[in-house]
Amino acid sequence: MKAKTSHADGSNWQKKLHDVIYESNTTAGKAFDVTLLVVILASILVVMLDSVKRYHLRYGTLFDVLELTFTILFTIEYILRLICIKRPLLYVRSFLGTIDLLAIIPSYLSIFFIGAQSLLVLRALRLLRIFRIFKLNHYLSEMDYLGSALRASLKKISIFMLVVLSLVIILGSVMYLVENGENGFDSIPDSIYWAIVTITTVGYGDISPVTPMGKFIASVIMIIGYGIIAVPTGIFTAEVAMARRQTKGSEVCPNCGREGHDSNARYCKFCGSKL
Amino acid sequence: MKAKTSHADGSNWQKKLHDVIYESNTTAGKAFDVTLLVVILASILVVMLDSVKRYHLRYGTLFDVLELTFTILFTIEYILRLICIKRPLLYVRSFLGTIDLLAIIPSYLSIFFIGAQSLLVLRALRLLRIFRIFKLNHYLSEMDYLGSALRASLKKISIFMLVVLSLVIILGSVMYLVENGENGFDSIPDSIYWAIVTITTVGYGDISPVTPMGKFIASVIMIIGYGIIAVPTGIFTAEVAMARRQTKGSEVCPNCGREGHDSNARYCKFCGSKL
Amino acid sequence: MKAKTSHADGSNWQKKLHDVIYESNTTAGKAFDVTLLVVILASILVVMLDSVKRYHLRYGTLFDVLELTFTILFTIEYILRLICIKRPLLYVRSFLGTIDLLAIIPSYLSIFFIGAQSLLVLRALRLLRIFRIFKLNHYLSEMDYLGSALRASLKKISIFMLVVLSLVIILGSVMYLVENGENGFDSIPDSIYWAIVTITTVGYGDISPVTPMGKFIASVIMIIGYGIIAVPTGIFTAEVAMARRQTKGSEVCPNCGREGHDSNARYCKFCGSKL
Amino acid sequence: MKAKTSHADGSNWQKKLHDVIYESNTTAGKAFDVTLLVVILASILVVMLDSVKRYHLRYGTLFDVLELTFTILFTIEYILRLICIKRPLLYVRSFLGTIDLLAIIPSYLSIFFIGAQSLLVLRALRLLRIFRIFKLNHYLSEMDYLGSALRASLKKISIFMLVVLSLVIILGSVMYLVENGENGFDSIPDSIYWAIVTITTVGYGDISPVTPMGKFIASVIMIIGYGIIAVPTGIFTAEVAMARRQTKGSEVCPNCGREGHDSNARYCKFCGSKL
Repeated sequence: MKAKTSHADGSNWQKKLHDVIYESNTTAGKAFDVTLLVVILASILVVMLDSVKRYHLRYGTLFDVLELTFTILFTIEYILRLICIKRPLLYVRSFLGTIDLLAIIPSYLSIFFIGAQSLLVLRALRLLRIFRIFKLNHYLSEMDYLGSALRASLKKISIFMLVVLSLVIILGSVMYLVENGENGFDSIPDSIYWAIVTITTVGYGDISPVTPMGKFIASVIMIIGYGIIAVPTGIFTAEVAMARRQTKGSEVCPNCGREGHDSNARYCKFCGSKL
Repeated sequence: MKAKTSHADGSNWQKKLHDVIYESNTTAGKAFDVTLLVVILASILVVMLDSVKRYHLRYGTLFDVLELTFTILFTIEYILRLICIKRPLLYVRSFLGTIDLLAIIPSYLSIFFIGAQSLLVLRALRLLRIFRIFKLNHYLSEMDYLGSALRASLKKISIFMLVVLSLVIILGSVMYLVENGENGFDSIPDSIYWAIVTITTVGYGDISPVTPMGKFIASVIMIIGYGIIAVPTGIFTAEVAMARRQTKGSEVCPNCGREGHDSNARYCKFCGSKL
Repeated sequence: MKAKTSHADGSNWQKKLHDVIYESNTTAGKAFDVTLLVVILASILVVMLDSVKRYHLRYGTLFDVLELTFTILFTIEYILRLICIKRPLLYVRSFLGTIDLLAIIPSYLSIFFIGAQSLLVLRALRLLRIFRIFKLNHYLSEMDYLGSALRASLKKISIFMLVVLSLVIILGSVMYLVENGENGFDSIPDSIYWAIVTITTVGYGDISPVTPMGKFIASVIMIIGYGIIAVPTGIFTAEVAMARRQTKGSEVCPNCGREGHDSNARYCKFCGSKL
Repeated sequence: MKAKTSHADGSNWQKKLHDVIYESNTTAGKAFDVTLLVVILASILVVMLDSVKRYHLRYGTLFDVLELTFTILFTIEYILRLICIKRPLLYVRSFLGTIDLLAIIPSYLSIFFIGAQSLLVLRALRLLRIFRIFKLNHYLSEMDYLGSALRASLKKISIFMLVVLSLVIILGSVMYLVENGENGFDSIPDSIYWAIVTITTVGYGDISPVTPMGKFIASVIMIIGYGIIAVPTGIFTAEVAMARRQTKGSEVCPNCGREGHDSNARYCKFCGSKL
């Protein structure tokens, strides 16, 4: 993220601004990050409180003023981000750039269009911006074996989920038949929704079987859901344990300089010289 | 699945048809698979939407026409599958062949018999046909250590499930006694149903204890259910980890004959000779 | 369990009866086991169905006759078990003997005392007798590493459970304070019951927080319960994996004849001779 | 915790009292611990029962007398703890000392201030005192690898929890939009509360989606919650397994210097020399 070329061609203030906004190793950069974090959280809080009718009636105008202030601040920040970066278009199209834009647009839309009021809720997406501040890639690099474990298990867990989904569709249809389209099992989609509520062990109770046969099938679904949680857990845990163990080999080969050896290895597995 | 003998004795079109329908390594074969997938999913969607009363009243006739079309398409497909295979009877009796037949029958039954309407829901079983298209054995071979882990842990998890079932029957009977056959605990089967809902941590709340003693026993069941989920998870995870590790180190050192090397190892980690 | 001494001093029919009742390696012994299993399950089924009011009214007399038959059968079996064993008192005092007795007593009590009707439910304990037939120790020996893993983790999981229990008592008391003794949080025991329902992720919904502060604390309890399930699972899984791995070393030392070596061991860890 | 210096300068009764109160290796010390445990549990029981209206009306005065007795006993104990320790201020400021004080204060406050009645519930915090008696550090030292595993995984699980929290806030806001602020989704905080109830698979059912779109999003949240429980479990389990394995093989071979031997190994498994 750090622009490593010297800004001999660019203006100096541009480089300074870039360091403050995009980096956090200077005092000004850290202060900017903390301020941004506070403003984002405050703006989320206003969105939340404004949705509570009681507070909306009493403090509605205050919330509107605050929201306008936040929007202006975010707009200024967005413009600053644009002008101090070398390739603004690359930033606009990036994932973080899109979120930065999405954090402003709903407010402006609601000013010009009355019907866009509901879009205001989308301001909650601003929350995603805090991940920029936490510079999570810093943390992630420290535990990248988790990422590799996730990648390794994702495909298997997807197939597991496909099986669960098929199970849920078929068992949901059977329950629609068994409960005769009554007791909340009004349609197949509703019955599938109930089957998902049941197999994931959430169990709202807004729909629950009434007939003895329905209760029996429900019991089977529950026991399946309770038992097969072991499958994704087992797959992921094994991958984490695998990746975790390979991370441990922090010993460096004195010959080729590569690491990742098992704890009981006596010879480098890459070049064959003694460790 | 691939008929490896040359079709010198059979007709050529039969072999070509076989490749299109049963294989997917030709362009025509892939197109057939994608078409079949779309038709199956569309047919499932029609089954679902038709069960929603609102849509049934408005689009009922359209759904009937679509369903008839799908049934005819599946019938043609079934006949084609029969005539292009060498041993049709083997196919008819196979698991996939049975599902293919079950996907058609309910529709025909509902035309000839009025009472067979409810069987229409069984068309949801068509969903199982998508697993044929995904050719899951391809994926499964890649991770067959999962299968061996499942086989190794199935017996132990079954005994665990038998213990849970006994627990649920006995605790359900005790709750029937404690709650005095009231508050939804109307009979022992109902109480057992409640105990399953509780021990799997689903917790609908359609039945819940009212007496202090009942609440106490319920708490015990909940804590048991919360704690013992560790048992199947532990059994399966250990087996996956075991199988996962053995999958990796299948290469044997030509010098010392020991295995257990990482997949990226080029030298034996025990004696240092080239692998 | 097998009496290995020759029955030269005892009568021959006693030894034969013992083999039929206590062993299962003869045809008669297997037939006895299967019959016993069927009778036990049938007797449990009668207990269950008799508790359903609708069936009780219609088939009540039939159920009573069946129950009397089962009780007589179990009594005869109990007497036979007593007379064909060498030390009857040892059997009477044993765990299985106690269950065998408990399976008969409630029925007799209900004949002589009217008030003992409720004890009839205790007949469900007969279910425990099926474990005698399954001769589970046979299975358990095959996977005794599970038992050792359970023993190794029981103490740690107990302390974990003690912490959860303290958490639940304190958070339950706080919720009683926060919800002001209303909305179902009528007393501290009720609030603790609710906290257990919540932390185990059962969530009946018979009691649920109403005040914003209560909802906030409830959210914290839920997230705690959702997160800390990893603790008992992690403890048990690690122990199973540990025990599972040590089981694997089925190689026997040629010198001292002991097993349990790691897969990468080259020397016997007990006597030091080469494997 | 044991004062190892000789009390030549201090009075002898002070040292004896210290051994009784703070240690448990003498008969008097053990008796003190058991008495304290009983009094604490009795005092908790009184707090609980007093909160049940029925018991409060009948035995209210008895409970008050008991509570006064317990408070006086705890006060005496607190004073004794102060006078028999060398640095009383250090004790007052310590974690256990604070809990000891918190166990007394609410009772006194409720005597002098009427409004402090609600603080009485805080007496439940006395429960924390039982951990002092159990001298958990004894147990904890035995399994300190659990602690190191918790420390190692805490940071990763925290980031996981941060992601879950963001998910819950964003999905809660979306649900508020989708359900149109009705059906219990009255405000964004309420919707977030519902999202937490759902993603942790608690599922009270006090709020549940009504619109088809809402049910669809709810299904997605449920499946996410059901699937990602594998993440903290996997992280923690891998760390426990790692720490558990390293705990075992702490003995080093005197000949080849390698470790990783089983606890029952008498010879190095790599070079065969005596351990």
